[in-house]
Amino acid sequence: MESVATISESISAANSTAVEKMMNAEPILFDVDLAYKCIPSFATNRQILHAGPPIAWEQMCGALKGAIIGAILYEGWEETPEDAEKLAASGEIAFDSGRNHSALGPMAGVISPSMPVFMAKERGSNKVAFTNFNEGLGPTLRFGAFDKDVIKRLEWMKVTLAPALKAALKSSTSKAEGILLKPIISQALQMGDECHNRNQAGTSLFLREVVPHIFRNVDRIDAIESYEFINSNNHFFLNLVLVACKIMADAAHNIKYSTIVTAIARNGTEIGIKVSGLGDKWFTDQAAIPSGLYFPGYSANDANPDMGDSTITETVGLGAAAMAASPAIAKFVGGSAKDALEMTNIFSKITITKHRHFTIPYLDFEGSPVGIDIRKVLRTGITPRANTGIAHKLPGIGQIGAGIVTLPLLPFKKALKEYATEYGI
Amino acid sequence: MESVATISESISAANSTAVEKMMNAEPILFDVDLAYKCIPSFATNRQILHAGPPIAWEQMCGALKGAIIGAILYEGWEETPEDAEKLAASGEIAFDSGRNHSALGPMAGVISPSMPVFMAKERGSNKVAFTNFNEGLGPTLRFGAFDKDVIKRLEWMKVTLAPALKAALKSSTSKAEGILLKPIISQALQMGDECHNRNQAGTSLFLREVVPHIFRNVDRIDAIESYEFINSNNHFFLNLVLVACKIMADAAHNIKYSTIVTAIARNGTEIGIKVSGLGDKWFTDQAAIPSGLYFPGYSANDANPDMGDSTITETVGLGAAAMAASPAIAKFVGGSAKDALEMTNIFSKITITKHRHFTIPYLDFEGSPVGIDIRKVLRTGITPRANTGIAHKLPGIGQIGAGIVTLPLLPFKKALKEYATEYGI
Repeated sequence: MESVATISESISAANSTAVEKMMNAEPILFDVDLAYKCIPSFATNRQILHAGPPIAWEQMCGALKGAIIGAILYEGWEETPEDAEKLAASGEIAFDSGRNHSALGPMAGVISPSMPVFMAKERGSNKVAFTNFNEGLGPTLRFGAFDKDVIKRLEWMKVTLAPALKAALKSSTSKAEGILLKPIISQALQMGDECHNRNQAGTSLFLREVVPHIFRNVDRIDAIESYEFINSNNHFFLNLVLVACKIMADAAHNIKYSTIVTAIARNGTEIGIKVSGLGDKWFTDQAAIPSGLYFPGYSANDANPDMGDSTITETVGLGAAAMAASPAIAKFVGGSAKDALEMTNIFSKITITKHRHFTIPYLDFEGSPVGIDIRKVLRTGITPRANTGIAHKLPGIGQIGAGIVTLPLLPFKKALKEYATEYGI
Repeated sequence: MESVATISESISAANSTAVEKMMNAEPILFDVDLAYKCIPSFATNRQILHAGPPIAWEQMCGALKGAIIGAILYEGWEETPEDAEKLAASGEIAFDSGRNHSALGPMAGVISPSMPVFMAKERGSNKVAFTNFNEGLGPTLRFGAFDKDVIKRLEWMKVTLAPALKAALKSSTSKAEGILLKPIISQALQMGDECHNRNQAGTSLFLREVVPHIFRNVDRIDAIESYEFINSNNHFFLNLVLVACKIMADAAHNIKYSTIVTAIARNGTEIGIKVSGLGDKWFTDQAAIPSGLYFPGYSANDANPDMGDSTITETVGLGAAAMAASPAIAKFVGGSAKDALEMTNIFSKITITKHRHFTIPYLDFEGSPVGIDIRKVLRTGITPRANTGIAHKLPGIGQIGAGIVTLPLLPFKKALKEYATEYGI
């Protein structure tokens, strides 16, 4: 057994290394393809990926079940929701966490073989991460809706939007490595986004990058349709934030001795975290009901527990961690500008540094708090908060609100216990 | 002579009316044309318009002279700067304040007959206001530069950009009245712009509106060239802010008894203000040297006195009045986020209300201070501040910095004196 002082130094050094790698990662968006063409496991499995830790059909929440029913209808594996549900329950489909395939998405985070996905990689690396396309507001698959309009939109995204964006990204990679996502995220923080629940600036800046590539390389009608779809959805950039964050978080993962959190994700039943020095094990607890504002006619009684991969934003210093950059989001979920500052302050108590590239104008361009240390979480009893959308708990309905969720302490406790065992403390 | 109490009530009522009209005006961008085709006075005069109060060639500052030399070269009236200067001094050209023709522009604000101008009007009115196109950064006519690249860019703007934007606006007016400028400005304030020295969000949001119209109606190569020109210049939206502000300020002008400032403008020699209840008379003083940050190699010794029509932004609650929305601009001119809040607070001391549509996230969406009352300026001794670019004092050089200028008290004193005479107090 090493001495406490030695261990403590090893942890500090490992955490510094991890957070440096997290801050310095340079995610580059470079391609679009259908999932079965670029995510290897689809070649051998009749598979559907979902957000959060792995979970069996029987344990899935209503909203995730709804999204999977929709994916089965979209794939044409069944014709009716009833038959789709039977197929899902039959065991013939391999369900897996997208995270086991470097894939992620907001809310249900469902990716089936024929869905288009964005492909991003860290500069200098060949390891690719994937995310699905954001569908916009109203009833959407990611919130568990699966009506005809939802399926029709998914088909349009495959047939029109994906080829347009593929052509645009091919164009962007002809002269550069692709579209650098971190500068867009950094700039969006200067423009009122916290890059989780607000992506208005990010979507605007992404459009500014991608427009000439789309209009140079795509038939005019398809180009305008694609443009108008993205332009009508201020959350379009969210999924690109997620894949960028995944690359940043992965850069900090698997650093021996590091106690830094490198994943936070929810499948609507469980929330799980991963820790840099503890390999690929999830440390989980039941997902909580977010506290927030509900659309007219709905209340917390209708709410699905917390769901989605989008807490990868809070993992790398965005979302609730950067709330001080976005009073509009604090207001959206019922708070004030002071509450926004307070939210960022909360993160400062459980993180090890301030981000070098993600800065907050109203804190005189101080960095957002980054590098959640499970030791600090346990010492203070403060757990990360997360901004989130709220889905209905039944399949087939969709979004009913948005709010803030406070993560449970148990996953951090479990992780620290495992750490003690693993490192023999 | 009316009693003081009666006068005071009349002033309060008039000021409320004026500021309501200012806040409620709805400026709509609807067309582009060459100046001589749409500004009537060009039909009968060999004319060049400029920023600020009217001024004779002999009294003009170096930067304005430079811009006028450039305009003469651009028009092809002379071939060399030396001959252009002679022509300017000959009396053969009618110089006038753009304000006398509902036209305005940043810095030199020079508009000659063959320059394209944007046309905007208030909803429901036929009165048109005009502004020139923003040329971007580096040496530009508006800062007094007139080299070959400056003239070449102006020519490209006439031949390619203006027809593209004209076609786009024609398309936008086929289904609506045109492009509503106030919602873009309001949203830009939520995204870190103060809409004078920072227009990154405004330019992004304007692009989002105009892109489908451009790409539907313009030849692909010209459309992409036009797009890339706008996209490369985060000040492009500034001129559209100015024409929108002009319409808002004019809506508040000529209200009997009102002591609200409806124009602040500088020609690089003099600064002048107008007051709602005092008709079209300018109240002037010498323009000051802005205090700010200079580009490497330059100092305040090289600076042209304060210049341009862009202080129309501060007149209606934007720019320095809305500085709290834009810590980035405070930093750009050497200040902190606290300084940004303080700047907005200064305006609160000399204005009569908070803007209903222009709100500031970090003040919990409180409106920006609007309605500068000359009585409050005199009572407090506080004059409006303005964000501004800084031109070199010699013709032909261009921008050398950016900063903040504190307006002199004298124009407000002169206006109050005139008010006392006019209203017999």
